[in-house]
Amino acid sequence: MSPIPAPPWWQRDDLCYQNGQLYFAGHEVNQLAKLHSTPTFFYNAQRLNDNIARLHTALQHAGMTGKYRVLYAMKANRYAPLLTHLKSTGLVGIDACSPNEVDHAISCGFGPDEISFTNTSLSRSDYDRLNRIEGLSMQCDSLTCIRKWGELGGGRNIGIRINPAIGLGRADNDKLQYAGADTTKFGIYREQFAEAIALAKQYDLSITKIHFHTGCGYLTPQLDHWEDIIQTCMWFVDQLADTVEVVNVGGGLGVPHTEHDMPLDLDLWAAIVARNFKDKKVIVEIEPGDYIVKDSGILLLTVNTVEWKRDKTFVGVNGGFNIALEPAVYGLPFQPVPAMIRKGEPMKVTIAGHINEALDIFSRDTILTPIEEDDVLVLINAGAYSTSMASNHCMRGEFKEFLLY
Amino acid sequence: MSPIPAPPWWQRDDLCYQNGQLYFAGHEVNQLAKLHSTPTFFYNAQRLNDNIARLHTALQHAGMTGKYRVLYAMKANRYAPLLTHLKSTGLVGIDACSPNEVDHAISCGFGPDEISFTNTSLSRSDYDRLNRIEGLSMQCDSLTCIRKWGELGGGRNIGIRINPAIGLGRADNDKLQYAGADTTKFGIYREQFAEAIALAKQYDLSITKIHFHTGCGYLTPQLDHWEDIIQTCMWFVDQLADTVEVVNVGGGLGVPHTEHDMPLDLDLWAAIVARNFKDKKVIVEIEPGDYIVKDSGILLLTVNTVEWKRDKTFVGVNGGFNIALEPAVYGLPFQPVPAMIRKGEPMKVTIAGHINEALDIFSRDTILTPIEEDDVLVLINAGAYSTSMASNHCMRGEFKEFLLY
Repeated sequence: MSPIPAPPWWQRDDLCYQNGQLYFAGHEVNQLAKLHSTPTFFYNAQRLNDNIARLHTALQHAGMTGKYRVLYAMKANRYAPLLTHLKSTGLVGIDACSPNEVDHAISCGFGPDEISFTNTSLSRSDYDRLNRIEGLSMQCDSLTCIRKWGELGGGRNIGIRINPAIGLGRADNDKLQYAGADTTKFGIYREQFAEAIALAKQYDLSITKIHFHTGCGYLTPQLDHWEDIIQTCMWFVDQLADTVEVVNVGGGLGVPHTEHDMPLDLDLWAAIVARNFKDKKVIVEIEPGDYIVKDSGILLLTVNTVEWKRDKTFVGVNGGFNIALEPAVYGLPFQPVPAMIRKGEPMKVTIAGHINEALDIFSRDTILTPIEEDDVLVLINAGAYSTSMASNHCMRGEFKEFLLY
Repeated sequence: MSPIPAPPWWQRDDLCYQNGQLYFAGHEVNQLAKLHSTPTFFYNAQRLNDNIARLHTALQHAGMTGKYRVLYAMKANRYAPLLTHLKSTGLVGIDACSPNEVDHAISCGFGPDEISFTNTSLSRSDYDRLNRIEGLSMQCDSLTCIRKWGELGGGRNIGIRINPAIGLGRADNDKLQYAGADTTKFGIYREQFAEAIALAKQYDLSITKIHFHTGCGYLTPQLDHWEDIIQTCMWFVDQLADTVEVVNVGGGLGVPHTEHDMPLDLDLWAAIVARNFKDKKVIVEIEPGDYIVKDSGILLLTVNTVEWKRDKTFVGVNGGFNIALEPAVYGLPFQPVPAMIRKGEPMKVTIAGHINEALDIFSRDTILTPIEEDDVLVLINAGAYSTSMASNHCMRGEFKEFLLY
């Protein structure tokens, strides 16, 4: 068994071992588990602040001061205390994608004018509800949306979501392809762009924002390609140079999932933003979800079984894929981390949930320090797309959430 | 565009067009949508009865009368009225996999002695809760489980779940591999079998049931292989011939998902059961989930948009993958069916949900009769693994359920 490198790739000031005990946000993880039981998600408010501050700093260093806005993609995690904490920073607005999300964001303290709404396939009752929210920024994803929004009232500003037909994502992951060679459901393609403009004019809607979102989870190696996409999208922006005030470049900024990933080079990323937008008379919006919340959250689980089966050691825990779906739905495994370092030979383990389904595996063949029954095991990077997508499958839907200050 | 075959492959007495209107369980689907709105799931009680009756008939014709039990795998759909309806038939017991499922089954009318519990990775509190339910049939999935259950009280009967190391599923679908070449988290392998027997003896537990579950969604072409698996499992049964009274062969009986699938030949299936078990002094248990509920349920959605994008027509509906997850999680597409036949050229359409995610697609490039905005569109085979796994992702978790008599 190869030794575990010290320090491990994921270690940072607010998530690290001290005297063999894992600490998160200044708390001993085993103590958190004792106090609040498991399965439980903990979010570090300071890490949220740090992630947001890093984005602002990079954009400001690149010369974008006063020329950008950060919108948090709330579908990543809508835990109310977390949303209110983000509001309290004054540093982010909200990217919402359903009327209930809009209501929820407002209930957590955000003003309608801080919310950008990006839709797909809205119903008539969705339009009616959204139409009552004054100040909401509406991005139309389709010709149908321009028409229906226009029918509810002309003379206002809209955004349109365009699809540049080139995409970006984690390699070979078709679950995360928002744009690309295959036609996707999102946005207005170049082929329908003239029609979209004509339709907006027909309803006296002024297109003041262009939105595009082209993929998910990109890291430094994908940045060159990301710039190609921005440049492709510029064609659309230039067509509407007279009216467009805001260009929303979507989210998708990635977070490392495994030891093989390197963190996104934010300065390189911000330089691309600046190179393409600094001299344009537009505000740039970005919509990070993962980047703000994913690594601010951990999931504490308790080990139920450690058992050798034929040629593998399975560590069975007291949570399932239904409360932390990224491995099952998106093919993104979790990094498991023991809450304390036990002495002894490292073990190669497969972390399995308690759901009676084959896909209920959190990670495979990970080398960890020894693990025993009743130990607390942590899944890191659990802050995004876990609780927001959690179900009560097999009636195993119980978990708690805590925001740690 | 190639014409749509008449009648379509999915049509049957309780799900068919009459004068251009789709009927389900004797109700006009458009009328159901008007009365109860969308998105809504409807389950046909009579279809549940028919599916259960077909299983019993096939097994009885094969000579298995008095030698088998049918247990409904409630994780497929736990809608309370549906469970109580199944109880009222007197023809099925319950396969449960969590303490909450056991409670819920009892709350819907089942007795503890009608419940078979198959576990994976149980916590100490799970064991405590299960230990209070007298009469529950416990299948131990691991050596750990035998030990922990034994520690709570010896002198009782248990089942053990074994893993024959050969598996079965829909071709190329690793999400549904419960057993096979790769070691999975499920069951006790041959390599640990002697140890399992010794452990049971140590705690004075009598192994009266052998359980194996080897895959999901098998249809007629997989039956030969299914028989191979049963014969492999027989080795385990024979080792414990003195004590084993029940052999549980799991579920996995499949339902056609596309026009290319043929229904499972139940007589062929029952003949395999009879050939292998008729002359043995054991009761055979089967645990169908999909087979009982999947085709008894439909999901009614309303069409929000019909829009040409570049080279595809997208039909956007008012429900998302979060309430009907089989395409996104298991790679099993839905067959969409318009609630009424409109005249005109058939259309090739991609059915997309209203969630702002790339994977939110119900079916691709399906040829349907013309569809317009505000039409009702039905997803058939929505009775299993839809609501039971539903989440409130993007706060789009709203739906209703109705059991139709």
